Amino acid sequence: MLTTTDPRTGVSAITALEPTTRSGVDAVAERAAKAASELHRRGRGFRAALLDAVAASVEAARDRLVSTADAETGLGAARLNGEVSRSAFQFKLFAEAVREGSLVEAMIDHGAETILGPAPDVRRMLVPIGPVAVFGSSNFPFAFSVLGGDTASAIAAGSPVVIKAHGSHLLTSQLSLEVLQEAARATDAPEGTFNVVFGQEAGLALVVHPAIRAASFTGSLAAAESLQRAINRRPDPIPFFGELSSINPIVITEGAARARGADIAAGLFASFTGSAGQLCTKPGVAFIPAGASGDALVESLKRSTAEAHPQVLLNDRIRASFGAISERLVKGGAARVAIGFDLPVSATDTGGRSSGGFTVAPTMLETSAALLTEELAEECFGPLIVVARYSALEEVREAFARIPKSLTATLHVEDDEAAVTAELSPVMEASAGRIVFNSYPTGVRVTWAQHHGGPWPATNSQHTSVGVTAVRRFLRPVAWQNAPQAALPEELRDSYEAIPRRIDGLLVLPGPDRGSGR
Amino acid sequence: MLTTTDPRTGVSAITALEPTTRSGVDAVAERAAKAASELHRRGRGFRAALLDAVAASVEAARDRLVSTADAETGLGAARLNGEVSRSAFQFKLFAEAVREGSLVEAMIDHGAETILGPAPDVRRMLVPIGPVAVFGSSNFPFAFSVLGGDTASAIAAGSPVVIKAHGSHLLTSQLSLEVLQEAARATDAPEGTFNVVFGQEAGLALVVHPAIRAASFTGSLAAAESLQRAINRRPDPIPFFGELSSINPIVITEGAARARGADIAAGLFASFTGSAGQLCTKPGVAFIPAGASGDALVESLKRSTAEAHPQVLLNDRIRASFGAISERLVKGGAARVAIGFDLPVSATDTGGRSSGGFTVAPTMLETSAALLTEELAEECFGPLIVVARYSALEEVREAFARIPKSLTATLHVEDDEAAVTAELSPVMEASAGRIVFNSYPTGVRVTWAQHHGGPWPATNSQHTSVGVTAVRRFLRPVAWQNAPQAALPEELRDSYEAIPRRIDGLLVLPGPDRGSGR
Repeated sequence: MLTTTDPRTGVSAITALEPTTRSGVDAVAERAAKAASELHRRGRGFRAALLDAVAASVEAARDRLVSTADAETGLGAARLNGEVSRSAFQFKLFAEAVREGSLVEAMIDHGAETILGPAPDVRRMLVPIGPVAVFGSSNFPFAFSVLGGDTASAIAAGSPVVIKAHGSHLLTSQLSLEVLQEAARATDAPEGTFNVVFGQEAGLALVVHPAIRAASFTGSLAAAESLQRAINRRPDPIPFFGELSSINPIVITEGAARARGADIAAGLFASFTGSAGQLCTKPGVAFIPAGASGDALVESLKRSTAEAHPQVLLNDRIRASFGAISERLVKGGAARVAIGFDLPVSATDTGGRSSGGFTVAPTMLETSAALLTEELAEECFGPLIVVARYSALEEVREAFARIPKSLTATLHVEDDEAAVTAELSPVMEASAGRIVFNSYPTGVRVTWAQHHGGPWPATNSQHTSVGVTAVRRFLRPVAWQNAPQAALPEELRDSYEAIPRRIDGLLVLPGPDRGSGR
Repeated sequence: MLTTTDPRTGVSAITALEPTTRSGVDAVAERAAKAASELHRRGRGFRAALLDAVAASVEAARDRLVSTADAETGLGAARLNGEVSRSAFQFKLFAEAVREGSLVEAMIDHGAETILGPAPDVRRMLVPIGPVAVFGSSNFPFAFSVLGGDTASAIAAGSPVVIKAHGSHLLTSQLSLEVLQEAARATDAPEGTFNVVFGQEAGLALVVHPAIRAASFTGSLAAAESLQRAINRRPDPIPFFGELSSINPIVITEGAARARGADIAAGLFASFTGSAGQLCTKPGVAFIPAGASGDALVESLKRSTAEAHPQVLLNDRIRASFGAISERLVKGGAARVAIGFDLPVSATDTGGRSSGGFTVAPTMLETSAALLTEELAEECFGPLIVVARYSALEEVREAFARIPKSLTATLHVEDDEAAVTAELSPVMEASAGRIVFNSYPTGVRVTWAQHHGGPWPATNSQHTSVGVTAVRRFLRPVAWQNAPQAALPEELRDSYEAIPRRIDGLLVLPGPDRGSGR
């Protein structure tokens, strides 16, 4: 039997869930394979309707979802309600995108006499890759789990999904599956469209199953590497999209520190402690200028940190890792300048601590940019930030070259510091997938233009896991040459004009029946 | 010193080329890294001009290119002239695509009050990934080598390129580099934009060099696996795009055999023996119906094969492999029904044979679809085809499930056999990246809608290596959040309207200055 634990108390409760056996994984993967061809056959209109139905089903189950997840994660009702909204929104946005149809990248090149001789008619679009294995994250029980963006991406692509539930929120995952099944029933979706497996062994069995055609993962580098090794041993390796590790450097210029140091200190504190610092976009290193304005900003951040309540982490492994990494950073030369636990704990905190919950103290460490090594820029999941003081921008640029690349890089800069922006922009672009100006990297907008990815080790791919273009991960191109109209997908037939298509090299917007889908 | 060999005589000539040393590889990769930021900075207009200049430079060197390559490959002037034209065309087409601008996938989502609260301005586009390592193929000394589609793709993306020259055409590669350098001089391109390294060790050193950000490869599964293993050992694994192995099944229906059996036999013969069968899209297995029409088709194909002249392969390794695989297939149960060498050889052939050139006999083997195993569908580079006779379509479908997946799958079918098309279409779509109707898979049109890729082992990626969308392999997305206009790439600024962009979810075509690039 699998167990989950209340992170506020550390008390484990045996749930009713058995780990999925190897034969259970086989059965699930084969169900998904059967669903794949039927889902593909039903086309874009059906997928969009299914995504909308999931959104409605999520909203309808909101209260049960939030309370179940709160008991398993300790993330609190406010954050979890926001996450349910985001999850529902994601399914609706992806439904719209599927109807709009650009995602299939339809292209038609008519047969022609060309400079290279007679050329055949060639038509291309993206088709579903087949059943997708999704590894749910620890830190987003909804938006990056069973009801998450990867599930939405797979369905939008036309691919069934098998989600490996994260061990920290098994009951939430089970309930989430029921929510998906409700939507499947409402739309008469193929049996096997949505599936969940439980347990680490099941996850490993899943990525090597012949029916699984792609996998996505949000979590640690070590876990990703073990999955990647298993995939490499397949006779037919499959694409594996991992969102892995990110330190998310943030740079405060002299001008910004002077103009709005107190605001920045408050924003930075909120950003590194929000969701108990358990966000992949948490700013882990802040470059703050030497001098009076920088000192004041640092002082303010120090005060907020020292006054902060202890925070509940998701599980014991994350708490242990938080402790170990903090120690490593201090041994590596970062000074511990503020710890929330130094203050007398409040009544609510005491409950957590005395009962053995997974609580830790928000922590601020300090070093100089010149001394910031790769080791001092180790990602620490939880409410910890390393402040790196700098005297010259050159030190920041050099530090960026040493520290690992990230999902995000952030710059707080004033309008009259254009030279600084110009100097740092190429460095940030080379180091991260999203460049944030005068705000904070946490809080990832779900939209068309979002990119949640970045150079290794942020991710292992050239694709995003948030936003509409995330669907591309689960599609593959197919070209048809001289095909009769009836053998073509609807989107590539001469008479179809409902989506943007590239025809003989020219992008053509939809005709009058735009957006009708099918 | 490296040597190349005249494949018509088997005589080796020591060339003036030394294998590139490890420090030579370092120097080249660092030059490319320096060129990368400058090439990126110059923007799309410059890249397009450079691609056009390469096309002109290729045309200007046509005669020298063809004669040099003919001596090293034995492919003949007609084929090589065609390939030079294709190479030049490719650079021009990619220049056009860069000017058109859709490739950068520009998207703008303005800041807004949303259902999830206030959302920041987010803008995304694809930027160059950085220096690309390209492994030239044996069989296309131009179109898949130094002057090939991967070089065009990298430059179109804005990435410098380091090509590992194929050992079978070293002098052609050296001359090709000079052709590229000529274009670089004409456009004042950054030093280090184009680079070539020689020797297998240099290739391995290249893919693990920190400056190299992506690699592409056309060649054997075994060579790809050794490069992939090296890449996996990098501290920062990079994307590796391999075009690997393909059997390219072709299915002839009963109706097609009856209506145009003789034409199909002639077309199939031309397709499997063209370029001495050394094409990744060569049809390696042909499903031909039992019965009189199928018998006639097979007889005709047999006759053409038996009457065929010996053909010159590219190198001794390919010749040895052709012999070994033919033997394996016969041992595995395929009957040898026609061999070109059975006929008295003509005067020209004798020259080839007696002088030890890399000649082989076009070969036709036969089996039944029911007996066609994975082993009998082993790719054999060179002029060999396995005919698999079938009595029921079910046998073809079952055989497709057993044999490896491919770049292409082809169907010859009559208009009144719509049920057959409907039954086989999903099978072919699942098995290949391009579905060809009533023609032949060899001859890959270079265009927007082309897809030259397919499920493993055809390729290891969801991207093409031929056609305009091949550029996507060497791009990565970056998002900017709340960025000042000056910090944005030109394509994402409010005032820029020269390329298609997605604005607040809606695709918007260019304004009046369309296509001006920059």
